[in-house]
Amino acid sequence: MTAQSRGLLAVVGPETGSPSCGVTVGPTWDPASAAHQRGELVTKRPVTPTSVVQIVVWERENFQGRRQEFTSECSNITQYDFDDVRSIRVESGVWVGYEHHDFEGQQFILERGEYSRWEAWSWSNSYHVEWMMSFRPVYCADHSASCMEIYERENFMGLHADLCEDYPSLQAMGWSNCNVGSMFVKRGAWVCYQFLGYRGYQYIMEYDRHSGEFKHWRQWGSHSQTPQIQSIRRIMH
Amino acid sequence: MTAQSRGLLAVVGPETGSPSCGVTVGPTWDPASAAHQRGELVTKRPVTPTSVVQIVVWERENFQGRRQEFTSECSNITQYDFDDVRSIRVESGVWVGYEHHDFEGQQFILERGEYSRWEAWSWSNSYHVEWMMSFRPVYCADHSASCMEIYERENFMGLHADLCEDYPSLQAMGWSNCNVGSMFVKRGAWVCYQFLGYRGYQYIMEYDRHSGEFKHWRQWGSHSQTPQIQSIRRIMH
Repeated sequence: MTAQSRGLLAVVGPETGSPSCGVTVGPTWDPASAAHQRGELVTKRPVTPTSVVQIVVWERENFQGRRQEFTSECSNITQYDFDDVRSIRVESGVWVGYEHHDFEGQQFILERGEYSRWEAWSWSNSYHVEWMMSFRPVYCADHSASCMEIYERENFMGLHADLCEDYPSLQAMGWSNCNVGSMFVKRGAWVCYQFLGYRGYQYIMEYDRHSGEFKHWRQWGSHSQTPQIQSIRRIMH
Repeated sequence: MTAQSRGLLAVVGPETGSPSCGVTVGPTWDPASAAHQRGELVTKRPVTPTSVVQIVVWERENFQGRRQEFTSECSNITQYDFDDVRSIRVESGVWVGYEHHDFEGQQFILERGEYSRWEAWSWSNSYHVEWMMSFRPVYCADHSASCMEIYERENFMGLHADLCEDYPSLQAMGWSNCNVGSMFVKRGAWVCYQFLGYRGYQYIMEYDRHSGEFKHWRQWGSHSQTPQIQSIRRIMH
């Protein structure tokens, strides 16, 4: 399997002249990549063990105000004298943010990168969420070997489908229903979305929680109000 | 290439007893699938030519009020005595919706399925868009063979990366910048998003528009206000 087939970018310098601004590649860069074959400067980034996770949060937008680093879950940010979290940088690993303390309320997937204000992570409708009070790492994300089953009805009844990729439209891929009755995560971690195109409420579904079994839509999260699921994607480390 | 490797679902009936509610599969279902091997009832859906596109729009939410079908672009829905569009069903193909008439303003990718109200398609922040005034099909989507290049600076300058998959976090995949300076779509069609995890403003980038060349972020759409791009995915038919 090549690095690109695992979704990693080979970021290369300008084709003319030597790059002065440095070159980076993904953590499992493939030395047979086209960039390498062209003899371009490529710097290998150290492999990050999946057990190393780090998130930095700020009390104000745009990475301003006091900051706090975490390498494990935080059940209530007010214990660190924050009113709430207003900007985030995920340094490594994948995290889930929650609207309320103790991992309750709306869920937000947080992949590596910068979230400068609430709009960058929160689903914002008429009831939008401008804060994040608790968060925890997702340990079982396994992008290259994720698989799950979705069922038409609760308790794994009715029609079902095996998922092993990303599905921006379940309906386009053959699932004729806007709803999902139950789910069984056999491997990896997934984000399920209320609407097509990875939009709406998010539900983080992990192999190592509930034994991967989610028998009823009320188990998808404390904010679950509907069985509507129209798009699903894998979570990558 | 198997059907599943192309992202198609093999939707199968219950494992006990004969399914009474019918069974559907994706248009290029693989007869060697596990479902078939188990001898379960599987019905093949006819292949839809990519040139056949159809969208139905309603003047009210939840598919209420007057409806109108389209098989080609609509530059101004008011020409059909609609004030605007409030719910949508994409029957086939992939479409792009626009905030204003004549394909101006915010862009929304519309893949196959049902959009019951504005929240299902519009990026909704403090300046949210509750309507859609024009829309057109995307003809060049080619999920299995899409490729594009992103560049650090405008006019295809600076560091660049080749993309051939979906990237919920460009930063996780080795792109160290929150911005993209220019893009070259070599094949297929893509949605580029302002934020990580397919969130924020959308920019639909197609091989058959501008010859695939987008030299400056102002060319990404009439609503472009920033070079910020943090996630990118392919569009599938």
